[in-house]
Amino acid sequence: MNLHVIKIGGNIIDNDTTLREFTADITGLKEPFILVHGGGKLATTLSSTLGIETQMSNGRRITDAETLKVVVMVYAGLINKNIVAQLQARGCNAIGLTGADGNIIPAKKRQHPEIDFGFVGDILPGEINTQLLKQFIDAGLIPVVAPLTHDDKGQLLNTNADTIAASLAVALAPEYEVQLHYCFEKNGVLRDKNDDNSVIPEITAAYYNQLKNEGIISDGMIPKLDNAFAAIGQGVREVSILHARNIRAVIQQETHAGTRLING
Amino acid sequence: MNLHVIKIGGNIIDNDTTLREFTADITGLKEPFILVHGGGKLATTLSSTLGIETQMSNGRRITDAETLKVVVMVYAGLINKNIVAQLQARGCNAIGLTGADGNIIPAKKRQHPEIDFGFVGDILPGEINTQLLKQFIDAGLIPVVAPLTHDDKGQLLNTNADTIAASLAVALAPEYEVQLHYCFEKNGVLRDKNDDNSVIPEITAAYYNQLKNEGIISDGMIPKLDNAFAAIGQGVREVSILHARNIRAVIQQETHAGTRLING
Repeated sequence: MNLHVIKIGGNIIDNDTTLREFTADITGLKEPFILVHGGGKLATTLSSTLGIETQMSNGRRITDAETLKVVVMVYAGLINKNIVAQLQARGCNAIGLTGADGNIIPAKKRQHPEIDFGFVGDILPGEINTQLLKQFIDAGLIPVVAPLTHDDKGQLLNTNADTIAASLAVALAPEYEVQLHYCFEKNGVLRDKNDDNSVIPEITAAYYNQLKNEGIISDGMIPKLDNAFAAIGQGVREVSILHARNIRAVIQQETHAGTRLING
Repeated sequence: MNLHVIKIGGNIIDNDTTLREFTADITGLKEPFILVHGGGKLATTLSSTLGIETQMSNGRRITDAETLKVVVMVYAGLINKNIVAQLQARGCNAIGLTGADGNIIPAKKRQHPEIDFGFVGDILPGEINTQLLKQFIDAGLIPVVAPLTHDDKGQLLNTNADTIAASLAVALAPEYEVQLHYCFEKNGVLRDKNDDNSVIPEITAAYYNQLKNEGIISDGMIPKLDNAFAAIGQGVREVSILHARNIRAVIQQETHAGTRLING
């Protein structure tokens, strides 16, 4: 059976209209899916209103105790439950989860020799509760996962949504034919980042190395594609990187849009 | 099979030590349970920090759009997920839910001829998703329910936690031998509200009417007891009102503490 793991980023969540369009699009899907959402600007806005300063260390953002409270409120509360309510309104039996709920995503606090990232989680891939997720999916539930995990000692941890999506896709690959979709605000992986029509339709692992060497793929796209190819190497059938508005067409194979990453 | 529906109020949640003691107590229970939590002062504190004024109409608190955002963040985010993480740390497979998740508690926005309460939900008792809750419980999951419902049209609704606990207890009564426990900061229903040792150990429906007529039970205790007796009238086996610190002893029948409400 096919299973789609769909990740949506902040810019879709931040805009009420695009979020409603997106939830309308995905509720029509004929195949089961898991939705993983990112954080968006809401957490930053709330932190700033509350006078919580963004802590940085060597250029990296730190999740201190106060920031963790904010992201738990915004990610697991406001964003997650509004998406769930919107999906329910369209007859899609969504259930909002963090990695702590049902112990679906155990993690450990990130250890780094120089930087203390604070309450940031690194997923323990072998410990993902695949059986419970499968039970939910087979019961017709649509898991909506917020980017938070826990250390199984009572501590919630802020965790990258792209990594959660890839980890869930890999963990479920033995059970389903998993397709992983990263939805964002561009049409795909672009040859020229200023030209939204320069989408590279297909990238193999070998071609990815070439594109990196040529400097065509750089910056923020590299961790996303590294995650994606790692997932493919671990049994995920296909990864696509696409504009959120094309998700339904791509999943239902009505059109080719975005960038397909494939083995080879 | 026995099932315990346990409601905890704000004052347990507000204090990190009492909350930890409580989660330690209930994780040792040998029988399955559902935990319903209230809101506590955190939402009021956050509202006030954010400069959101408490709206009142004819002496009743109104949940406007901004207040709803705060309670969704605090109830479904901060409180719910911290309780889940604490229970998980003690090997209890908790899953945090609002009424929107899995469509477990459909409600409608409260209609009142004179007062617009804002985004407040009245539960539709016949529509509670008993089968999904039973599926969770039978799979060893412990539902942790935040006091929020939804109208099945995309709108989250602020909903009284006592009422949620009673409604869940009634809905599950055909499936289990349900005991409903209201935990709070007093030792039980008191004959003299200034004397914590004046607990009335047992109250029948007839005795309840007498106590109300005599003015011994008044104010905030009346809706709680009305809820409780309504639940008993609809198949809940027993309701107890007790101090949170006695929950484990009462459930495990090691001691008699608090007030037992019984049919008759």
